[in-house]
Amino acid sequence: MPSDADFLGLTPAGPDGHYQFTVSNHLARLDGKLYGGTAIAVSITAAELVSGRPGLWMTTQFVSTAPADATISVVAEVLAPGRRTNQVRITGTDESGDVMFASLGATGHHRPDGLTGTFENPPEVSAPADSVSWATPFMAVLRNAGVDVELPAMPSTTGFASVLEFREPTVHEHPDPGPGRICVWVRRRDGEAVTPAMAAYIADMVPLSVAHACGAVADGISLDNTIRIGSFEPTEWVLVDLRPHMAVGDYGHGAAHIWSETGHLLATASQTASMLHFDISSMPGTSA
Amino acid sequence: MPSDADFLGLTPAGPDGHYQFTVSNHLARLDGKLYGGTAIAVSITAAELVSGRPGLWMTTQFVSTAPADATISVVAEVLAPGRRTNQVRITGTDESGDVMFASLGATGHHRPDGLTGTFENPPEVSAPADSVSWATPFMAVLRNAGVDVELPAMPSTTGFASVLEFREPTVHEHPDPGPGRICVWVRRRDGEAVTPAMAAYIADMVPLSVAHACGAVADGISLDNTIRIGSFEPTEWVLVDLRPHMAVGDYGHGAAHIWSETGHLLATASQTASMLHFDISSMPGTSA
Repeated sequence: MPSDADFLGLTPAGPDGHYQFTVSNHLARLDGKLYGGTAIAVSITAAELVSGRPGLWMTTQFVSTAPADATISVVAEVLAPGRRTNQVRITGTDESGDVMFASLGATGHHRPDGLTGTFENPPEVSAPADSVSWATPFMAVLRNAGVDVELPAMPSTTGFASVLEFREPTVHEHPDPGPGRICVWVRRRDGEAVTPAMAAYIADMVPLSVAHACGAVADGISLDNTIRIGSFEPTEWVLVDLRPHMAVGDYGHGAAHIWSETGHLLATASQTASMLHFDISSMPGTSA
Repeated sequence: MPSDADFLGLTPAGPDGHYQFTVSNHLARLDGKLYGGTAIAVSITAAELVSGRPGLWMTTQFVSTAPADATISVVAEVLAPGRRTNQVRITGTDESGDVMFASLGATGHHRPDGLTGTFENPPEVSAPADSVSWATPFMAVLRNAGVDVELPAMPSTTGFASVLEFREPTVHEHPDPGPGRICVWVRRRDGEAVTPAMAAYIADMVPLSVAHACGAVADGISLDNTIRIGSFEPTEWVLVDLRPHMAVGDYGHGAAHIWSETGHLLATASQTASMLHFDISSMPGTSA
């Protein structure tokens, strides 16, 4: 089974806790630059490697972005080496030494008989096989804003879209309905099971749901990603259950629950974003 | 109006971005050591002071704790000085230079006409005046675990309890019911309005709700606190609406929505904790 490090091209580079990776196409946004989901996935993977235990939570702050093919140096430090829990710090810098992302998180050993349970309910949705392929995640936002536009399909050779497939289910019942809820099935195109690092890579979608909730033709620049990791079970598809919380003065906040195919809660994510408005009239195919 | 810096005793100490505070009684846990809610409140206040703009989000990682009366040095650095948004990093160290807490967050200028909205619904609860004073937050956990015990009332002269008052409302309807939901009204005993930094100081209660959801006599050591800040309105009481998400192998995760007295969503918080079991038989007054 290929590891998260394989997917991310994360290789050792110097003493313990030093790694590097290259901003390959599948680690980039649709504009070719370093993707936020990559930064948090790299942070989780580096934390797990340096501490030798599974990830518990991670917050990644996006300081800057790097162009295609840039080499990013990653340093993972254990700040508090507890017997059970390790508090860790991860920093990613470019060739000039400028910080691209900064992360804080923890890894730890689960106690076999420790407290375990799930206290949230999954939405009732159609299975991936009975869901509609997304040309682009932005379709949901446009539909909600009442804009009739034929966007070109998401180029499946560009950025994260080259390795992920998206399908929008029919939502039969939602445990916490509200404006802007979006559910989307996501899987790796190569069919590999979704790990905690991959869930973090996938979950960077909250700004979309904030725009959807506002009924605005907008998206957002993520300021950070936070993920909290539960118990994982092998699953090809994950349901990203986006729950925007609030927006104020063009800053948006919200969360995403990540469910397995069988409705098991794998992880919860949250984000803050700086919202950006789009000029619809400049979009190709607009009839609004 | 006294500022957050006044409440926290946070004073300049050296060049721009350097501050310090003392672990006074009201900044401590019930055992007299540095309280996690203090660390995130100090981080927000230092970030706002160094950047000259209001806080947007903050994650504080608890690396170690300091004893009563320790002096903590705080360094706040702007990592990405954008025109609108500042990404910041805050580190708190003790007299030996050991890291007590590390924080990442952002501050920013809200656009007056920017996207604004609330996409979550408040629980319907009784007003503070019609709610029951908590002898200790731990009562809810014991009640749910079926333990009949008379705990001594929270000593109102110790730690954060010396400045906060807690009342448990009757919950008439919850928008997202599930195991472990706890709602609690909290206010400053001095009646001052709750600011974003104070909301973060108050919100450090998720581990309690995870224990409650598990029906276990347990509490947790917070590994971190994350807060995402919406629009604030003057409010004396805030409703802390605790929503535990999951637990696995004695690690627990969950969130808290912070509502004003009028039901306006002020902020959302989330946490991961290492859970601790208590030996009930050693508690005073146990009849179980």
